[in-house]
Amino acid sequence: MAVKIELDVKKKQLTVSEPESVSSLVNGYYGYMKKGTIHLFSEEALYLLDIRNASCNDTSLNTYRFNAVAALFPQKKQMARYFAYKDWRDRGLIARQTSEICECYGRNNAKKYPPGELKLDKYALQGRFYADDLWSIIDDEPVGKELYERYWLGQFGSYKAEQRGKLSKLDAYETLFLVRHAGMHLENAKEADVIRAARKQHKDFLHLYSVYEDWRLHGYVLKTGFKFGTHFRLYMPGASPVREGNEWIHSKHVIHCFPRSSKMLISEWARAIRVAHSVKKTFLLAIPGEAKKKKITGKKKETDNFRTTLDFLLYHRQHGGIENPKTGKPKYLMLSLSEEEYIGGEELAEAIAQCKRIGLELILAICDRETSVTYYAVKRVEVPGSKEEYYEIEWEQP
Amino acid sequence: MAVKIELDVKKKQLTVSEPESVSSLVNGYYGYMKKGTIHLFSEEALYLLDIRNASCNDTSLNTYRFNAVAALFPQKKQMARYFAYKDWRDRGLIARQTSEICECYGRNNAKKYPPGELKLDKYALQGRFYADDLWSIIDDEPVGKELYERYWLGQFGSYKAEQRGKLSKLDAYETLFLVRHAGMHLENAKEADVIRAARKQHKDFLHLYSVYEDWRLHGYVLKTGFKFGTHFRLYMPGASPVREGNEWIHSKHVIHCFPRSSKMLISEWARAIRVAHSVKKTFLLAIPGEAKKKKITGKKKETDNFRTTLDFLLYHRQHGGIENPKTGKPKYLMLSLSEEEYIGGEELAEAIAQCKRIGLELILAICDRETSVTYYAVKRVEVPGSKEEYYEIEWEQP
Repeated sequence: MAVKIELDVKKKQLTVSEPESVSSLVNGYYGYMKKGTIHLFSEEALYLLDIRNASCNDTSLNTYRFNAVAALFPQKKQMARYFAYKDWRDRGLIARQTSEICECYGRNNAKKYPPGELKLDKYALQGRFYADDLWSIIDDEPVGKELYERYWLGQFGSYKAEQRGKLSKLDAYETLFLVRHAGMHLENAKEADVIRAARKQHKDFLHLYSVYEDWRLHGYVLKTGFKFGTHFRLYMPGASPVREGNEWIHSKHVIHCFPRSSKMLISEWARAIRVAHSVKKTFLLAIPGEAKKKKITGKKKETDNFRTTLDFLLYHRQHGGIENPKTGKPKYLMLSLSEEEYIGGEELAEAIAQCKRIGLELILAICDRETSVTYYAVKRVEVPGSKEEYYEIEWEQP
Repeated sequence: MAVKIELDVKKKQLTVSEPESVSSLVNGYYGYMKKGTIHLFSEEALYLLDIRNASCNDTSLNTYRFNAVAALFPQKKQMARYFAYKDWRDRGLIARQTSEICECYGRNNAKKYPPGELKLDKYALQGRFYADDLWSIIDDEPVGKELYERYWLGQFGSYKAEQRGKLSKLDAYETLFLVRHAGMHLENAKEADVIRAARKQHKDFLHLYSVYEDWRLHGYVLKTGFKFGTHFRLYMPGASPVREGNEWIHSKHVIHCFPRSSKMLISEWARAIRVAHSVKKTFLLAIPGEAKKKKITGKKKETDNFRTTLDFLLYHRQHGGIENPKTGKPKYLMLSLSEEEYIGGEELAEAIAQCKRIGLELILAICDRETSVTYYAVKRVEVPGSKEEYYEIEWEQP
C-alpha cells in the first residue's frame, strides 16, 4: 500500500501516522518517530512521492505533487541535494540528516606515504631563462646530463630519447627550485624575474611551486602531468630516469593543485580526475594556501565539534548487508554538488576539516545534468616530515 | 663531418658555405640557397647545434653555443616554436617557414555530417524551475515520459532506469529550448529568469546554448557530456533513448564549446580532448560568438590571402616516403603552443580561417614542460543547413 503523507502547510511539517505506512518507514530508516508519528525531512517526502508512489495531502485534503511540496521547503541547491539523496537511496543504502551527528566516529585515518629526503650536491649551474616560454636551458652538456640522471631535474636530450641532443631543459618549477636550492645562475634573469614571468602566465604559480618544493624536498620526483591532465606526475623517493634494461619507469600517482583561494567548475574538476582514472593513476589533491582565520564568537561548546555544513550522513555496506543507524555507524559525510556548480578550494578544505573532526570520510556526490551521480571519496595522506596534508581522490561505486 | 655555421652578428645572418655541409643541408631541405651559400633560419641553426653537433662561429672565430645563438634571434614563444620544430624534424619530416606559401593548396575540405530536422509537436508543458540548480522539473508523468521517449528531451525517471520515478528533469539547455520552441510554461520563472540564472553560474551560457540549439534544430540529440569531460555528447538525427532489446545506445561524438571571447589554458584544453579520446569518442569543437571585425587598410593584394600568423609549413608522409618541397605539397600549417600558455577562442578561429584560405589543415603542436610534443589536427565539419562551422579535433601521431 502506498504511503500517505500528511502536510501541515502552516507548521511546515510532513508526517505519516497511518500504522502500516509508519512501520514500513521505520524499517526503511526514514524520518524520526515522535509519539507514534513519523516526521519526515523534505528530501524523504520528495523521494517517497517520486519513487514509492506516495501521496501527499494537506489538512483540507488538497493534493500536493512533487513540485508543490518542493516549493514549500525551499533551500540552497535543493535539487542537487535531492538527486544525490535519491541516488544513495536507490542503491538500497541509508542516508540521514547530519543533525544526528553526536560523536567522533574515528573512521578517518590518514594513509602514510614513504619517507625520503633530497640531498643535492653543489654544482656550478649556468642557464638562460626564456621568460615568454617559462623554460630555462643549460647548454653545458655534462652538467645537464648529471642533473638529469642523478635527480631527474630537467629533461636532458629528448623526452624518452636522452641521447638525442645535448641541451637540458628545465621548466619553471625546476628552474626556481635550482635557483633556490642549488644556487643556479641564470645569465639573463634573477629569481624574482622567474617568479614574475611565471605568475604572469599562471597566477597560482607560487602555490603550485610550494607543492612541488614540498614533495621534492622529501625525496619524491615530480615531472609534468600534462599527459595525464594534471599539474604533476609523481614518483616515489629514489626514482631515476636511467632505465635498467629497456624498461621505462611508470608513475603511479598524479598531483593536482587546487589553491584555497581559487574556484573551479565541478565539471572541470571531475575531468581532471577522470583522465587520471583512465590511465589508472592515483589522483592526489593538494590544497595550497593559508586557511582563512575564523572569528571565534562566544564560548565553544563540545557539540560544535560535530557541526557541519555537509549534506548527508551516509551508511554504507558491510559484509553481506548494509550499515544502518540501529546496529552500526555511518561511514561517510556527503557533500552534494552539481556539474554546473563552482567549488572553492577554501570550501573543500573546510569540508575535509569537518570530516576529520567528525571522524568520517568525505564523499563528493556530483550530479550531472541528467541526474546521474558520480561519487568521489577523499582520503587523507601524510608525507612524513611535511607539514602539508594531501588527499587521494578515489572514484567510488557504492 | 659536422656542419659549420657562420654567424654574422651585425647582419644577423646564419650561413653555411663549406661545400660538403651545403650539399648535406640541401638534401635535408634546410634553409635557402643564395649564390652557393645556405642561409639558415634561426630554428634550423639551433636544431643543427642541438642535434647534429654543428658548430657556430662569428667572423672573429668566437664560438657560440645554443643559448648564445638563441639570444641573438629573440622572438615570441621562441622555445615552444623551437621544440615543436625539433620534434617534427626528429620524426624525419620536413618543416619550412610559412613565408614560402604562395598558393592555395586545396587540401582542406570539410567533412559533411548527415542532415536532419526536428519536428516538435505542440504540448501543454508546465514545469517548475530550480534557479539555484539550473534544472526544471515536470511532475506530469505522461507528458514528461513522451517528451523523453519521442525527443530525448529531459531525463524521465532515473538515468538508465526510466521506469524508476515519475519526474522529468530538464537541464538549463533543455529548459530554455522548450520555453523557446515548444511554449513551455514555468510556474515560477520566465525565459529571462532562466537565462539570468544560467548566466550567473556560467557566463558563457548563451554561447553554449546557441550551439545546443543549432544541432538540436538540425535533428541531432544532445545530452550532457559530463562523463566524457565535455559540454555535450551527441547522437545522430533519429537517435532514441528507447532501447530495442537491452541495448543502450552509445554516442560516438562529444562537443565542447570554446567561445571566441574566452581564453583557455592549453593544458585544460588538452585534458578535455584526452578524456574524449580515452573513451574513443570523436571530439567536436564549437567556437561560438561573433568574429571581431578587422580593419581593412589599403588595397588588398592577392598574396595577402596567403599571409599567416602560423608557425611552420609542414610536409608529411606519403606512400613509402616523405613529402618534400621539391616533389610535393605541404599538408599542414602548424600552430605551436606550450602546456602553460593560454589560447583565445578568437585566436584559434583566426588560425583555422587562415588555414582554410591557404587550403591546408591546421595542426596544433602542444609542447609539454618536458618538451614532449602532442599533435592535434583540426578538420572542418559541415552540418547541412547550419550556418556554423564545427571542427573535429584528432589526436595525431605523425
